[in-house]
This record gives sequence, C-alpha cells and structure tokens, in this order.
Amino acid sequence: MRRIFLDHASGCPMDARVIKHMEELYDKSFGNPSSLHTLGLDARKKLEDSREKVAKLIGAERKEEIIFTSGATESNNLALIGYALRNKNGRRKVVVSKIEHISIMNVAKYLSKLGFEVAYAPVDEYGRVKLPKLDEIVDSNTLIVSIAYANGEIGTTQDIRAISDIVHAKGAILHSDGVPAVGRIPVNVVRDQVDMLTLSSNDLYGPKGVGALYVKTGTRIQPIIFGGGQEKGLRSGTENVPAIAGFGMAAEIMYKEWREESEREKQIRDKLIDTLTSNIEQAYLNGHRTLRLPNNASLRFIGIEGESLVLNLDAYGIMASTGSACSSKTLEPSHVLMAIVPNEVEAHGSLMLTLGRDNRIEEVDQVSTVIKDVVSKLRAMSPLWGKPLDLEEWRQKMEHSEGE
Amino acid sequence: MRRIFLDHASGCPMDARVIKHMEELYDKSFGNPSSLHTLGLDARKKLEDSREKVAKLIGAERKEEIIFTSGATESNNLALIGYALRNKNGRRKVVVSKIEHISIMNVAKYLSKLGFEVAYAPVDEYGRVKLPKLDEIVDSNTLIVSIAYANGEIGTTQDIRAISDIVHAKGAILHSDGVPAVGRIPVNVVRDQVDMLTLSSNDLYGPKGVGALYVKTGTRIQPIIFGGGQEKGLRSGTENVPAIAGFGMAAEIMYKEWREESEREKQIRDKLIDTLTSNIEQAYLNGHRTLRLPNNASLRFIGIEGESLVLNLDAYGIMASTGSACSSKTLEPSHVLMAIVPNEVEAHGSLMLTLGRDNRIEEVDQVSTVIKDVVSKLRAMSPLWGKPLDLEEWRQKMEHSEGE
Repeated sequence: MRRIFLDHASGCPMDARVIKHMEELYDKSFGNPSSLHTLGLDARKKLEDSREKVAKLIGAERKEEIIFTSGATESNNLALIGYALRNKNGRRKVVVSKIEHISIMNVAKYLSKLGFEVAYAPVDEYGRVKLPKLDEIVDSNTLIVSIAYANGEIGTTQDIRAISDIVHAKGAILHSDGVPAVGRIPVNVVRDQVDMLTLSSNDLYGPKGVGALYVKTGTRIQPIIFGGGQEKGLRSGTENVPAIAGFGMAAEIMYKEWREESEREKQIRDKLIDTLTSNIEQAYLNGHRTLRLPNNASLRFIGIEGESLVLNLDAYGIMASTGSACSSKTLEPSHVLMAIVPNEVEAHGSLMLTLGRDNRIEEVDQVSTVIKDVVSKLRAMSPLWGKPLDLEEWRQKMEHSEGE
Repeated sequence: MRRIFLDHASGCPMDARVIKHMEELYDKSFGNPSSLHTLGLDARKKLEDSREKVAKLIGAERKEEIIFTSGATESNNLALIGYALRNKNGRRKVVVSKIEHISIMNVAKYLSKLGFEVAYAPVDEYGRVKLPKLDEIVDSNTLIVSIAYANGEIGTTQDIRAISDIVHAKGAILHSDGVPAVGRIPVNVVRDQVDMLTLSSNDLYGPKGVGALYVKTGTRIQPIIFGGGQEKGLRSGTENVPAIAGFGMAAEIMYKEWREESEREKQIRDKLIDTLTSNIEQAYLNGHRTLRLPNNASLRFIGIEGESLVLNLDAYGIMASTGSACSSKTLEPSHVLMAIVPNEVEAHGSLMLTLGRDNRIEEVDQVSTVIKDVVSKLRAMSPLWGKPLDLEEWRQKMEHSEGE
C-alpha cells in the first residue's frame, strides 16, 4: 500500500538536495563560527550565506535583518516577548487575531500575566480579520499587533498590507507569523510593510529545529535567551550551522520553484475540495474558497468526530490531521475552528488536508473515495448523524466521554 | 597537510553512526509526534526512545525527567530563569561560581535586573570552588545554585556531591552545567544529588541544535518559551525528532564507550601538558593538574597573545582556541581565566587544546614542536617578552591597540 501524506502542515519531508548538502557539512564543516581557525571561518561564511538566502526569499533588504532561532515557536516568542519587554515603558496593549497559532495565543496569555493588556481581533466566518474592527481595537496604547499572513489550519489568507496600514497609522508595529504562507503565496516584508516575520525551515522542506525571525532595521527587541551574544545578541547559543545551511538551501530552492509548485498544488487542492464537497453530503469547506493557501483543503463533515476519521484514514494509508490543536491531549476542537464554524459540534468533524511536493493530482480520486467510505461508515455508527441537533444533549455527552 | 583539530570544546564532528541514523529519519520518519497517524506515532516512539537513552547516560531514574531543548544555552536559561520565576515568592538569591559558562553568567545578570540578588562563589587558583566560602554565601535566602561539573575552558572538575550537600543543607537546589563533563568524567545525578543538569548533544558527537535539561521529579520550573505545550509544557515547539534521535544514539554510544575513550584521551592530554610545559619556558598549565577533564590541556605562554598563537597555528593546520570568550568581539580574556591567573597579562597568552576521538597520541610531538616554534617566533616580535612586567604600561598599550 502506497502511503499518501496529506499532513504537510505538521511537517514536511526534507528536500533530497538539502539532505545531501547537510551530510557534507556534518562530516567536514562542523566548525563554530566564533572560532578563529579555518573551520570556524568556514562556518561563519556558511552562516552568512544562509542569512542572505533567507533574506532574499522574503524580500528583506538587508541580510542582517534575519535572526536565526531554533524554530517558529521560538521566533514567535522572541518577537512578542522581546518587543513587549524592550519597549515596556510606553504602550501596554498587545493585539492578536482570534485565530493565531497556539504559540502566539500562549505568548499573549503570558504577556497578559506580566501586566500587558491583550485584545483579540475578530474574524469573519471565513477566518478573515475584520478590518474595521481591527481599526477600532488597535489604538494609541497599542504596542504590537500579531496577525499571520495565512492560517495553517483553515488556509485563509489575510490582506497583510491593509493590516499593516491600520497598525502603522496608530503608531504600533506589526509582527506576522509567516510559517504557513512563505513559499506558498507572495510574501514580501517591504511591500507589505511587516516589521517582524516568523519563518520555519521545515515548512520549506529544510531541516527541523531551525527557524528565523525577520526584524526590520530599527525595530528594537530584547533577547529571551541569554549567553554568548550570538545573532547580534538576540539569540545566544552556538549556531546550528549544518541546519542553518540546510535552511538557506531550502530557502534558495523555494525562491526559484515556489510559484510553479503552488500553481500545481492549487489544482490538487481545488479538485479535492470540489470532489469532497460535491460527493459527500453535509461536507463543508473551512475557510475562504479562493483567498486560501494553495496547499490547504480543510473540511468538516457533520455528524462524525475528526479523530476517528483520521485514525480510520490512517488504516488506508492516508495520513491527515483533524485540524484540532494537535498537541492538546483533550478532544476539544482548536480555537481556530471554534472562531469560524456555526457551532462547536461542526468543529468536531473537521479534517485538514495539507498538500506538498510529493502529492499528485492522480491521487485525488482514490483519496476522495476512501474519505467518502470512511465518513459513511462513521456516520452509520454515529448517534449524532441524521438527528436534529440538540446542543445541550451533545455537550453532556462530550463531557461524559472526555471524563472516561 | 593533515589538519589536526584540537578545539573539540567549540564543537565535535558528528559520529558517523549518528549521521547514518539521521539520514534514514530525514527521508522516512519526518513525522510530528503530535500527529495521530502512523508517521506521528513512529516519531513519538523515537522521541521517547531517545529520552530513555539520555536519561540512562546520566543515571536519571525516570526518562520523564529529561526535557529536550534546542541546546545547552537554552537549557541553562530554562533551568535558572524557569526556576527563579516559578518560585519567586520565596527566596530571592541566586548563587553561581565565578567561572561559569557565559550563558550562566548572563542569565544571572538578567535575573539581577529582575530584582534577584546574585552572588558569585569564588574559586582557588586552580578553579576549584572554595567550599567553605560557598557554605557562607549560600544562605536561607538562596533559591538556586548553579555550578558546573567541570569547566570547559580550563578543564578543572568540581566535587559536585560536596557542593550539593552544602546547597541542600541550606534548603536551596543545585543546577549544574554538565556539558563539558558528561561523557568525559563520571556524572550521575542521583549519586551526586543534582536537581537539574544541562546537556548538549553536539558535545557527545551528536547533532548541533539539540540539548536537554534534566529536571529531577518534584523540581518545579516554568517555561521560557510558550506554545503547543510539548515536553510537558516546559518546551513548546514541534520536536526536532531527527536531531533528538541522533542525540539519543550519541548518548547510547557514549554510555558504552566513554570510559575507554577518556582513558585514551587522558594519555594524550598528559603527554601534551608535560611536553609543552617542559620544552617551552614560562609555559604554565591553567587549572588543576589532576582534577581536570581528560580531554583538556589549557596553557598560558608568557609574553604573547593567544589570538596570534591560534592564527599562526592554523597556518600549520593545527586548530585550537585561545580560551578567551570566543564569541566576544573584544580582545579581553575570559572571566574564567581572569578568575584564576596571577594577573591579566598572563591570561592574554592562553591556548586551549581540547581533545576528541579523532586525536592520536602520535600527533603530540608534531603539535608540540609547532607550538614551540610559533611561541618562539611570537616572543621574538613581542615587546612584552624578556622585560620585567610593568602592568600599568601594559594596560595603556592594550587600551591603545583595542581602540584602533
């Protein structure tokens, strides 16, 4: 059975060219960029080459604006905590949208504990930030706003330039989590006037354990990790040069290839969405139909549980995700789905399919057939299917089953 | 010209077996441990296997006591900041030795800014913590003490059990940076009663960009990075499974092989120290002669600059370090050397040779001859050599040259 991987949002396989490049480094160029000898100088050069390639991918004007970190979660933490604490004598309000990544949501909570005011910008039924509302919430006390270019779970993209105009008009700065968007849709920090942008290597088919934060020249942040003063003092710790070099190469490849690949994935996405929503009754798309990532098909099927669907699909070699907060131990749907679906019952039946370079349009028929069969089977066993919805009864049932 | 790498403290080449293991993972097992499908479960298993191997290496009783991080600097930050902030309602004093790693020193400074009292335990001329002094400094207001098992720069080891007895008698807890020590000397967190221990993968010939913090059951810390709640909520961010699996394998290999390898490196170390100190005049050992890491030969040569020495040795294919704070842009000697040498002039002439698996005892004669020649050449050009030391004049000269 050939496995079909439709969960690229959870992690991408590494590009074979990047693997090969890193293997060479492991063996020969393991130097510390701070060392004075040849091996150290080699490492320093590789570090700066990668910085340039990452800067180029997002349209940054200067490579010095790229700070390498251990990944996107750390970058999100560094951006928000680092900016809020560095500039804490002035404004005291932090604004994030209601559908930001869990790392942004939990950093916001932490800042709230530290005494900052946190406000949540609402989104419409498609997950688009409501711009007039944002314009009301962002005020003269607002320090920083964090809104992602696109949501990795439901696929909806934002008009980042319109958002940055609102934010800057109030004298605040804009951070954006670029992880799901970079390499899939046009991202350019200069055109879109983004002050800080989070990047992940693995989402570009580079190695895990490395990411970056773009910090526009003049934006002052303080570190969250202290030590030897690497990365202009903003991220101490010996630089992970092999992974950073892999990240640089992945960024370089993405820069050249992303447009064509996104076009290809978009066709698979559209065929998946169209086939599933037309062949399965009460199957609905999560997020916006056109303003969405080319590699994201997020759907909900009324009357079933997403977890059961994912486990059953796995038995057929199809790997997907529910879209629920994946590292959570509860069966609660994610805050993202809860923000956009008509009611919580629908959120429970979600399936997130995220495409990548290894997917083929020829797979769509097989995938759709299996999903249709599994949904039918699960619905046949479901006490929720075919009955008018009694929300109160359903809530009691959920509480009971989670307590087991 | 065959290169001789004598700077293993700055980074180790990866074990070939670990490289091979990781290559397999990059390609096939790139799953996210939080995913419900097969690839996710595979990743979860690899993560827990590695946790067990790392726990075994340091004698931890439960694998759940190992928290994976992005490296030793982050582990040191998590231990000190995480403990101080989690327990801030009680005691307010943090004690570190005067020769801790720069990440510990800078975290201590940060905690001082946050209002904690920071005290520095003095060391003797060999870099051994003065236990009676420590016993005075650690008091009923002391929250946490951080003292490394061994110093990576001058090689001196500490009596960690005696230190933990002093710390615990006052009701404080002990964190130890185990990076230079683990895999070189016996480290056992249960025998030595260490509450938290920092580990680095690359120092065990594993990949860079991954480390761990041992946190004894019952020791409460808070995270410094917030997000999806991975690693029991103490280190959010998608787990870097290929690197963690490489770390686990490196730990497993170290567990089996370290005693024999340390014995071998000790012989090279002793031959290096004996040859250099007996063949070169005014060449002195930094640190203790016997209570030292088996892979560390740190020396100082009166009348020259360590940086010039390192650059000249590199031209002969010998890669070493000065022992100065390597990521610092100044020519100041490190705080470690300054704490143990008779005067600052001597600290400037330091050379740190750190051994690894790729070094051979047959190389010692060649290395010693080159070092002797280079030292002679540099001394012949040095205005400091052969004159009685005028500290005041020397300081003026240094200030002048640094201003250039």
